[in-house]
Amino acid sequence: MKRLFLIASFVAGFQAAVFSQTSDTAVIRNIFTEALTNYSAYENLRYLCKHIGGRIGGSPQSLRAAVWAREVLSENGADTVYFLEHSVRNWKRGGKETAKIVKSKAGKHELAVCALGGSVGTGKKGIAARVIEVQNFDELKKLGKEKVNGKIVFFNRPANPSTYSTFPAYGGAANQRVHGASQAALYGGIASVSRSLTLADHDYPHTGIMRYADSINKVPAFAISTQSADLLSKLLKSDPDLELFLQSLCTEKEDTASCSVIGELRGSEFPDEIIVVGAHIDAWDNGEGAHDDGAGLVQAMEVLRIFKSLGIKLKHTLRVVQFMDEEMAQRGARKYAETVISSGEKHIAAIESDVGGFTPQGFCYDAGDEVTKRLDEWKPLLLEYGLWLFIQGHSAVDISFLEGQDIPLFGLMTDSQRYFDYQHAPSDVFEAVNKRELQLGAASMAALIFLIDKYGF
Amino acid sequence: MKRLFLIASFVAGFQAAVFSQTSDTAVIRNIFTEALTNYSAYENLRYLCKHIGGRIGGSPQSLRAAVWAREVLSENGADTVYFLEHSVRNWKRGGKETAKIVKSKAGKHELAVCALGGSVGTGKKGIAARVIEVQNFDELKKLGKEKVNGKIVFFNRPANPSTYSTFPAYGGAANQRVHGASQAALYGGIASVSRSLTLADHDYPHTGIMRYADSINKVPAFAISTQSADLLSKLLKSDPDLELFLQSLCTEKEDTASCSVIGELRGSEFPDEIIVVGAHIDAWDNGEGAHDDGAGLVQAMEVLRIFKSLGIKLKHTLRVVQFMDEEMAQRGARKYAETVISSGEKHIAAIESDVGGFTPQGFCYDAGDEVTKRLDEWKPLLLEYGLWLFIQGHSAVDISFLEGQDIPLFGLMTDSQRYFDYQHAPSDVFEAVNKRELQLGAASMAALIFLIDKYGF
Repeated sequence: MKRLFLIASFVAGFQAAVFSQTSDTAVIRNIFTEALTNYSAYENLRYLCKHIGGRIGGSPQSLRAAVWAREVLSENGADTVYFLEHSVRNWKRGGKETAKIVKSKAGKHELAVCALGGSVGTGKKGIAARVIEVQNFDELKKLGKEKVNGKIVFFNRPANPSTYSTFPAYGGAANQRVHGASQAALYGGIASVSRSLTLADHDYPHTGIMRYADSINKVPAFAISTQSADLLSKLLKSDPDLELFLQSLCTEKEDTASCSVIGELRGSEFPDEIIVVGAHIDAWDNGEGAHDDGAGLVQAMEVLRIFKSLGIKLKHTLRVVQFMDEEMAQRGARKYAETVISSGEKHIAAIESDVGGFTPQGFCYDAGDEVTKRLDEWKPLLLEYGLWLFIQGHSAVDISFLEGQDIPLFGLMTDSQRYFDYQHAPSDVFEAVNKRELQLGAASMAALIFLIDKYGF
Repeated sequence: MKRLFLIASFVAGFQAAVFSQTSDTAVIRNIFTEALTNYSAYENLRYLCKHIGGRIGGSPQSLRAAVWAREVLSENGADTVYFLEHSVRNWKRGGKETAKIVKSKAGKHELAVCALGGSVGTGKKGIAARVIEVQNFDELKKLGKEKVNGKIVFFNRPANPSTYSTFPAYGGAANQRVHGASQAALYGGIASVSRSLTLADHDYPHTGIMRYADSINKVPAFAISTQSADLLSKLLKSDPDLELFLQSLCTEKEDTASCSVIGELRGSEFPDEIIVVGAHIDAWDNGEGAHDDGAGLVQAMEVLRIFKSLGIKLKHTLRVVQFMDEEMAQRGARKYAETVISSGEKHIAAIESDVGGFTPQGFCYDAGDEVTKRLDEWKPLLLEYGLWLFIQGHSAVDISFLEGQDIPLFGLMTDSQRYFDYQHAPSDVFEAVNKRELQLGAASMAALIFLIDKYGF
């Protein structure tokens, strides 16, 4: 109880002690106050999730999301809004997948699976076969064609939970999802079933892109929930001959027309020099794409709204770029980079939000030492808002296509503990996002942009 | 997609760059690895929440929780486990509360309310009266007896959401909850209804302790959910004469016997010198007490388990103190402090976790400059695990009774964005806790204790 009275003042004390750059401090405080008292990004995310939902590139939903994003950018005060047209892949899930254990001593069991993005389907007839469980590609190679041929290959290596950031856990297990099907096919496997890339113990299968190697037979690729993976593994131990039935209805047609969305707030001194803030419009079709990347999408638009609403006039043009097709082939990002390079348009910086609407922790960045030096100067202004983590390298996917153009690239970093509970899964819904955490991400990007615009590098 | 391969290594790179104190780095890494790969605290929390639940001091549940905590401490490897006996207040809710708008132009509405802890009840008959809405005590004073007499006083000042930490929001609105009833009674008000202390827009009323001023008539005190508060405020605007019916069945009997729980891991060199790690057993009866303070309770026991399980021999005695009755009168904390003072027992440090099982950010501490200096030395070892925030002052409630004994006091600080969505509300359930965030809190305290034990101050 005493806590009430004791703790109320501690942040105020902390704030007073640390800062001296009074006017920048005041502007940044205004930015955060605006973000924390007007939940515009949060309400936009509610609309996107509940009225549009999943929106993989090439889907009608993805185009509805693009049209909606254009409207929101206008409402938020952009003075120019337009589409950047490009093609996207045209993969469709086609319906809910089925996985059933059949011909087993332990009776029949349904398992939670989904097709991986880009996979071929089994067709309505499905496939049924014995299952061979492996932890990695080496183990598969050792088993060889003799033991793998004609079977479903079950890649069941769990993500390693032992690091503070959850990205190494994801990265360390991802090859099962991305290359599992072609590795299986190399030894005569007829399908792959890969353990979901998550540290959560739940029954949601997590989808995501997979890729076929050239000149290897394309076999259907599935993800299986961690709980269903554990069950399948347990059943296989007592009955290695059990048979698994799999059905997926996915198909891929020829590339189709789509677009990314751009909205600008014209700079007052250097309108031809651009600061990009972006995210991606598309999201996997099995959830609402709330954290990945609805959060980034509404945050990028919120950055523009915050400047407009506070009357902060940026010297450079702020350009919100909402990339289409990050999840499958990054066609929006590639098209945008081509346009920048061919036009010779000058970019001061590019910032992206694509790691979920969680409490921001800082930025990773691809840039030289002059940027590191500037960030060191700015850190005291940002630390008050929990931005303590600044790491060189690996900024973000869509803006990475601008690499080599001498443009400092920044990726918002957020608390990653919960990210892979939701990413690419049916659990990635609006309710999984906290309004304050989401709004803080927008404010963090706006604060960085304010400093870049004012001081440059 | 590229993100998979890019980001996997960034934390590893960050880790390699920052640290030089090799052996401490390795021990701390082992502590975090143990916490992130063995979810013992999380599974204990599941049991506490689902099999015992809410457990306000004086309730049978609070005693069951104490007995259970003693068992877990033994299982986790404590070599001494005992109860510290003391009395507690004996307040009981008595049943679900009712609030209904009656005699209103806008029809009848039910509102979500609960009795505040320590309040007198209305009895079964309830009370019905007109309502006067105010934002603060000054406004109430200006209205005076003439306008307040015989009415229910509705304190509806919202918490201010604009700071990064949510504690100032809570602290800035808390006087309505704590002193609202006596302030109402001072001007003839017959009950108080205070807006819940939360930034969440939901229909859960948040309880918490209230206090009656001496020599003022005791009137029933209620909390109302933020959504119901907004509704009531709106209805009052169009119909200021509406009547509200309130019923609460709470009663308070004479103090009753209870106990706090202590478990020790005997120090190898200085067994008579103590490092305390603690939390509180009791929790409000209207939820499961998951974040407040089930999280702290299981984390403190997890600290002991981590040392035991890794075979780390501490020089000083580690004492887990599970305080009973933080929420009402801190009787466990008072009794423990009395015992320490009367025995003259030497304490090296005391650490408490009572701000929810969220991602840890650092520690606040009540201690002198020598502690600040040591923390400065240790920060590079802790930053890797997201511990960036070290603030002097306001450590934690239960250990605050040790103030003045020259014992450095530390409170674990966590990301506070979501804390008041759950605190003291029916939403504070096991499902609101993320296993990694919870386990990181235990590891953070264990890492600090390892450094204190090895280097002292």
